Amino acid sequence: MHSSLLVDYYELSMIEVYLRKGFHGPASFEFFVRSLPDNRNFLLAAGLEQVLDYVTGLCFSDEDLEYLKGLGFSPVLLDFLNDFMFSGDIWALPEGTIFFANEPILRVEAPLPQAQLLETRLINILHLQTLIASKAVRVKLSARGRSLVDFGFRRSHETDAGLLAARACYVAGFDATATVEAGRAFGVPVTGTMAHSYVLSHESEEQAFRNFVDVHGDKSILLIDSFDTIKGARLAARLYQEYKRRGVRFRGVRIDSGDLLVFSRRVKNIFERSGCPELAIFVSGGLDEFEIDRLLRHGAPIDGFGIGTIVDTSADAPYLDCAYKMVEYSGRGLMKFSIGKATLPFRKQVFRSLGKDGGFEGDILCTADENRGARRPLLEKVVESGRILKRPRLEDIRTRVARGIGKMPEEFLDIHNKADYEPIISERLRRCLPEEPG
Amino acid sequence: MHSSLLVDYYELSMIEVYLRKGFHGPASFEFFVRSLPDNRNFLLAAGLEQVLDYVTGLCFSDEDLEYLKGLGFSPVLLDFLNDFMFSGDIWALPEGTIFFANEPILRVEAPLPQAQLLETRLINILHLQTLIASKAVRVKLSARGRSLVDFGFRRSHETDAGLLAARACYVAGFDATATVEAGRAFGVPVTGTMAHSYVLSHESEEQAFRNFVDVHGDKSILLIDSFDTIKGARLAARLYQEYKRRGVRFRGVRIDSGDLLVFSRRVKNIFERSGCPELAIFVSGGLDEFEIDRLLRHGAPIDGFGIGTIVDTSADAPYLDCAYKMVEYSGRGLMKFSIGKATLPFRKQVFRSLGKDGGFEGDILCTADENRGARRPLLEKVVESGRILKRPRLEDIRTRVARGIGKMPEEFLDIHNKADYEPIISERLRRCLPEEPG
Repeated sequence: MHSSLLVDYYELSMIEVYLRKGFHGPASFEFFVRSLPDNRNFLLAAGLEQVLDYVTGLCFSDEDLEYLKGLGFSPVLLDFLNDFMFSGDIWALPEGTIFFANEPILRVEAPLPQAQLLETRLINILHLQTLIASKAVRVKLSARGRSLVDFGFRRSHETDAGLLAARACYVAGFDATATVEAGRAFGVPVTGTMAHSYVLSHESEEQAFRNFVDVHGDKSILLIDSFDTIKGARLAARLYQEYKRRGVRFRGVRIDSGDLLVFSRRVKNIFERSGCPELAIFVSGGLDEFEIDRLLRHGAPIDGFGIGTIVDTSADAPYLDCAYKMVEYSGRGLMKFSIGKATLPFRKQVFRSLGKDGGFEGDILCTADENRGARRPLLEKVVESGRILKRPRLEDIRTRVARGIGKMPEEFLDIHNKADYEPIISERLRRCLPEEPG
Repeated sequence: MHSSLLVDYYELSMIEVYLRKGFHGPASFEFFVRSLPDNRNFLLAAGLEQVLDYVTGLCFSDEDLEYLKGLGFSPVLLDFLNDFMFSGDIWALPEGTIFFANEPILRVEAPLPQAQLLETRLINILHLQTLIASKAVRVKLSARGRSLVDFGFRRSHETDAGLLAARACYVAGFDATATVEAGRAFGVPVTGTMAHSYVLSHESEEQAFRNFVDVHGDKSILLIDSFDTIKGARLAARLYQEYKRRGVRFRGVRIDSGDLLVFSRRVKNIFERSGCPELAIFVSGGLDEFEIDRLLRHGAPIDGFGIGTIVDTSADAPYLDCAYKMVEYSGRGLMKFSIGKATLPFRKQVFRSLGKDGGFEGDILCTADENRGARRPLLEKVVESGRILKRPRLEDIRTRVARGIGKMPEEFLDIHNKADYEPIISERLRRCLPEEPG
């Protein structure tokens, strides 16, 4: 459980005014991304499970209230927080759904003070996993079915980011993670190889490899680039033949440096000439979707990739321009006019058109009460009067991503292409917009 | 307390081999940054306090061990973890110390299995705060003494990143944060204004402002750009005069959109003509050190900046190329030769030369047992036999940063300049390096 004081000070200041001035009316807030980063043709909604836990678990301890009292907040706010239990509704895209700019992926409908209180953490939760899943799916696309393992915890932005990046990568189609807690917390398969420090701690590379295989047997993957990758590969091949005779078939090797196209080819060559083409070649080291694509387009004989920093920090686009904006209060549609930050008023729904072959044809952004015939509404009610209606299952989310990807036209899936797609705004929603200032 | 399973799987695999093959000898690992990002002339060491808590608090529960048993780890590992208590020494740069590429900022000396176990989280901890503090100090330099408030929690990478970014920004010289928990956890002053949703929830901007000042009085800062910034400024000036007559002097206004140079000038003009030049102007919205520098170089009459996403994600350089490498094992100096990732062997110390005026002249990277006369060694022992010798105080760290900055030549402090400085490697350390392969 995280601290309930992970909230911006102004949420509390505003709520204090709402309470003292009687602003208890129903409010609707929507979370959306204003525009997509350059290298993203679509985004993947992720993090809803953690939002559900947050919203339904949010409460304030005596210590929390004591601290807030010390900051000068008045009894009316402290009483509200003391009694706090979310009683509203939440609508959301199921996790793993593909979405685009300006499409709400979550809507909170609740009395204004409640809906306001959620803002800070709700953005914080949805932003990170959506960010990472949307990057990781590009890596998945580039990897053409090769195995993908998340190695990124160490350089992700502290604990939650690393742990939830493992979840987001798995959502996007990765096969496993190195982060042990992600196995326990989410059931993501955990795996790993060895570090250079391990090899260096031994008198010789051979002794390091032997000790590892003695202990870990078939599961072993040997890191062969501590001194000389080619010599390391020859050693691995020789040891493989020796251990095979004793009934142990270790999995393969990892290369973590140098030109991975050149080295994977040379290492594969050694394995083939040594009669062990079945030894798998894993690579790692600063990889992103472009480098993976380059390697595989040139036929690099690589079986799997360890992916770290670049994905777990979404390094080419380390944040999304996202917001949680009030769109209705007491039945009034709301929009601000701030330069470059204008928002669409009223509660909205997204309808997706699929062709006869099931392929994606386009989205229409509508008011929440529109009916678009055969088209499928994407936002579903997930919380009603504070009760969770449906809990997402991680395997279902993975399946949804794979199916969603399968429906997208090639131009969206090409990592080198900029699709520049934006959903259509329905006639009715458009009529709700004010005239452009002249 | 964080889960002890926030660790890479391979650390446990390697430790299992160490234990079963008798690798209990003393090991030394150093944490360093291989190279600085483009826009960084120096880095600020940060996160040591959290490392101390982690290392001295690390232990494994029955549930942890049960989970690891299920992954197939053997009793020898489980017993080691069950009894785990860090018994080694740690040397570190005091938090807030300026440092450069290849300089160790922390060294762990402990039996190999212990030192290895710390790797994943230790990198994860030091990386994030060092990353953010090193970005935030550039913002501090650009702000020329104006007030700086961290607004970044919502788009930082989940909870810890946001909370610790508030700490790192404060270390670097920020004045406050919007994140309430950072106030409780670290004593960082907390503050805030109001959101557009607050203004929009009211029938009129005037009513929104009045309600806020009625409740929050002198502390109030009014967000004036929801509809029309100029009209918002005139309204704020009028209300200020009215409330002043009743003894309430609210602090100022915030502008969150548009060209902040143009609007801050026009708003200041309105305040001066309305007889309230003392009303402060705060601005926010995607600000970084370059935009702040542009605004202030052109004389924008801005009193303070709210800084969010760009600093809390270190958006121009969202990770550091850092590592935790074993440099000695049982008295042997260790280095790997991996292409592009070669490391310097042996335990090291950094000596800093200061001129007669106290100004920074340069660093020498030495072996740990060298004596460099009058020069000051930067790494201090902070943990001895598992016991913390000294706890950093946040205010002392802030003072260290301010003093360190005061000693740096102008070329390091110019955000538009690339200083390209690297520390000298001592003769003795250089002699420890092997010949370059021919």
